[in-house]
Amino acid sequence: MKEWFDTLLLELPGSAIEQESFRRIDAEVSPELRNRFNEAEWHVARRLVHTTADFTLLEALEFTPGAIEAGLAALHRGARIYTDSNMIKSGLSIAKLRKFHPGYARDAILCPVADPETAELAARRGITRALAAVELHQKELDGAIFLCGNAPLALAGVVKLVHEQRIAPALIIAMPVGFVNVVESKELSRRIPTPCIRIAGRRGGSPLAVATLHGIMENELC
Amino acid sequence: MKEWFDTLLLELPGSAIEQESFRRIDAEVSPELRNRFNEAEWHVARRLVHTTADFTLLEALEFTPGAIEAGLAALHRGARIYTDSNMIKSGLSIAKLRKFHPGYARDAILCPVADPETAELAARRGITRALAAVELHQKELDGAIFLCGNAPLALAGVVKLVHEQRIAPALIIAMPVGFVNVVESKELSRRIPTPCIRIAGRRGGSPLAVATLHGIMENELC
Repeated sequence: MKEWFDTLLLELPGSAIEQESFRRIDAEVSPELRNRFNEAEWHVARRLVHTTADFTLLEALEFTPGAIEAGLAALHRGARIYTDSNMIKSGLSIAKLRKFHPGYARDAILCPVADPETAELAARRGITRALAAVELHQKELDGAIFLCGNAPLALAGVVKLVHEQRIAPALIIAMPVGFVNVVESKELSRRIPTPCIRIAGRRGGSPLAVATLHGIMENELC
Repeated sequence: MKEWFDTLLLELPGSAIEQESFRRIDAEVSPELRNRFNEAEWHVARRLVHTTADFTLLEALEFTPGAIEAGLAALHRGARIYTDSNMIKSGLSIAKLRKFHPGYARDAILCPVADPETAELAARRGITRALAAVELHQKELDGAIFLCGNAPLALAGVVKLVHEQRIAPALIIAMPVGFVNVVESKELSRRIPTPCIRIAGRRGGSPLAVATLHGIMENELC
């Protein structure tokens, strides 16, 4: 029966498997796609491929100038992290975050989408909980790292706050996914000056938002 | 300033946006891809597209005969749910699960990958925590719904338990992602008789595993 499992690399720790994965990505990526990114950006881009096994995402990945540096600076000062999904909140590495600032903790990540007051406002106004949540927490978005991997109206709501209320997040990770409001909200995110890392088009997702922040951190942790 | 946001459907609750998303997916999917699935399977397939905005995943989506029915029966008896990532655990809808069995709760979802005893075994043997976790919890995998959206060696480890220890999960959702051990572990999952929903190849991810179980449930909740 043993031969069933001979195809696998079974006796390796996770860190060695991750390094082997990165090696295979570096070997397989086309020069055209690789050359779209500088070294700092490649830490993020490669991690997105690692998370999805999909190189075509790289065609849609966009960085505003200095976005990674803005993220690193925010992490060093312990900037608040706001997420639009509990999957992002549970996926972020607290161990890595704490290498930047000791104040980081799972419970300190703000994800108010399922809070009762969010649900109440959403029901009263007939809007999504994602949009209600950013309106309720607009002050806390000032200076924050905002990870959007799910709900396009969370992103659109933050763009609106920046545009109309002069709220200034430190970094927007703009990766909502889907068929309604998604392309539109990403287009809106181009019109504000906030540092932004974006997957253009319909695609995105919580693991991509998580991988982006992890990739930013790896610029200093590797 | 208002015209910035005229491109968005802002004044809709989340449920209406979801229905509009499904409508757009139904309108856009090619007949060839749609016809690969029966009605019950389409509830799952459509949700995978909704979660990723990527129709090409449908080319790789596979169901063993009766897999959805096996999942529904397991849910009705309150089968244990085992996941290989905390993102899956946090993404599952407890409200939906409780419509099948009152015993479901977030804390009852088994995800031992970060437990101290898992880390200890993994370090001692030089293996991944994902593999150590399934070995430690093999008895609890008997009769369980196993969601794999991250770690291929969690899947390979469960295949090994089925093959060698006669452990019988109720359903395997086989969607690990990546470049090392992923294709291989999915190939191994074809060789056991356990009901299985699989994304062949390198692709997968925690949101896909979550969406699959949600899609199974929607066969009875819609």
